[in-house]
Amino acid sequence: MKNQTYRMTMLFDFYGELLTQRQREFFDLYYNEDLSLAEIAENSGISRQGVRDVIVRAEAAMQEIEDKTGLIRRYTQMQSHISAIENAAAEIKIINYRQYEDARVDALTDVIARAAQALKE
Amino acid sequence: MKNQTYRMTMLFDFYGELLTQRQREFFDLYYNEDLSLAEIAENSGISRQGVRDVIVRAEAAMQEIEDKTGLIRRYTQMQSHISAIENAAAEIKIINYRQYEDARVDALTDVIARAAQALKE
Repeated sequence: MKNQTYRMTMLFDFYGELLTQRQREFFDLYYNEDLSLAEIAENSGISRQGVRDVIVRAEAAMQEIEDKTGLIRRYTQMQSHISAIENAAAEIKIINYRQYEDARVDALTDVIARAAQALKE
Repeated sequence: MKNQTYRMTMLFDFYGELLTQRQREFFDLYYNEDLSLAEIAENSGISRQGVRDVIVRAEAAMQEIEDKTGLIRRYTQMQSHISAIENAAAEIKIINYRQYEDARVDALTDVIARAAQALKE
């Protein structure tokens, strides 16, 4: 299951608070803390298959919410626009350095770069 | 209830697909199509109070999801960063017009402005 860690982390970041406490705990231990199913089973006193079932159901619940709302898909699309902003601001900064050395333009490109960075957090 | 239409529209935009079909239908008719409770009641053959109950439960369900995930709050915070980007790009464009007339800078500020616009859609 861990070959899909990026997708799982996104699902958990967006929808983790909608899971049950147990689902959230096991999902977090498995994907974020990188424990194995056997380790979680040992710590929680249930079977490895039981742990696996909880995690699989948690993923299914979050994926169903994403399929309905599309909020992660929308967020992912925003990232390409943010990259375009960052690249354009960096190019303006270079042009300004090479040709005009205007401190206002330099400061404004920094404003854009910082705002774009904040959008990614 | 209609004095909170903006908030309701945001909730519906983000989480409307997680409602039941009836909740979604009544919520949409009331807040987006601006029908009255009495009009929805008449069209659907249930009492005005019944319609009201469905809409109130729909709002509570969506607000609970928002309270847990904070996704609308995050989205709203992003809007201030996008405004900062738009304003900085507009200022660079004006400086460029007045002082340097560099077609590359003009084109790059347009790239930034278009990407910022896309982020708001």
